[in-house]
Amino acid sequence: MNSAAVAALVDRYCLAWSEPDPARRRALLAEVLAPAATYTDPRVHADSLEALAAHIDRVLAQRPGARVRRTSGVDLHHGVARFAWHVVQADGTALPEGLDVVWLTDDGARLARILGFFGPLRRLSDSDA
Amino acid sequence: MNSAAVAALVDRYCLAWSEPDPARRRALLAEVLAPAATYTDPRVHADSLEALAAHIDRVLAQRPGARVRRTSGVDLHHGVARFAWHVVQADGTALPEGLDVVWLTDDGARLARILGFFGPLRRLSDSDA
Repeated sequence: MNSAAVAALVDRYCLAWSEPDPARRRALLAEVLAPAATYTDPRVHADSLEALAAHIDRVLAQRPGARVRRTSGVDLHHGVARFAWHVVQADGTALPEGLDVVWLTDDGARLARILGFFGPLRRLSDSDA
Repeated sequence: MNSAAVAALVDRYCLAWSEPDPARRRALLAEVLAPAATYTDPRVHADSLEALAAHIDRVLAQRPGARVRRTSGVDLHHGVARFAWHVVQADGTALPEGLDVVWLTDDGARLARILGFFGPLRRLSDSDA
């Protein structure tokens, strides 16, 4: 398992978030996700490929033409990697960066678990922290 | 479970990384970690409280007087939180920020799992990503 291979896998995964055709989107997800993969971000916990595909359906219905692009290198250790990404909307404007942490399968070929955070880190001065 | 409570817990955990006395360090870790908690960063995977305590022993032996301070708010969802931190060395200089992702126990009272990354995100232009 090396960072370049994981970066290529992550980019295929980002393509799934950018694919307007639902059948192609599911094919991409089936290619990059382990069968029991889970996805969790601040808005959703999806415990199957179909649940994640349906979530992406809903997200893309809200912002047609949006694409997801990786915006950092991939930082990998112990089979887990972090990377930043953003949504580029149909008009070309980008939304704030998010951060994903992904767990690779033992053979490094697929994503076993995806954990996402939205936007920048919270400021230390935020009242609840 | 709320961000303020998690931030207070994380700050107690950071104190363990800053505590020069090994016995007090273990007491702090026992207070904030679940009995089966694990810790993983780019350099080590520790699968017990004692393994983590011994790792911190080694780190602090290399930089006596260093303290770990949280440098961002706590961003919490689905029982998982991210936050940034840095090491302040004995001479007052700070090392580059790292990022921790921590899983809370179901009752939110302790840390069940800690995953760390060092330094800033890798640049997209890095050759291997």
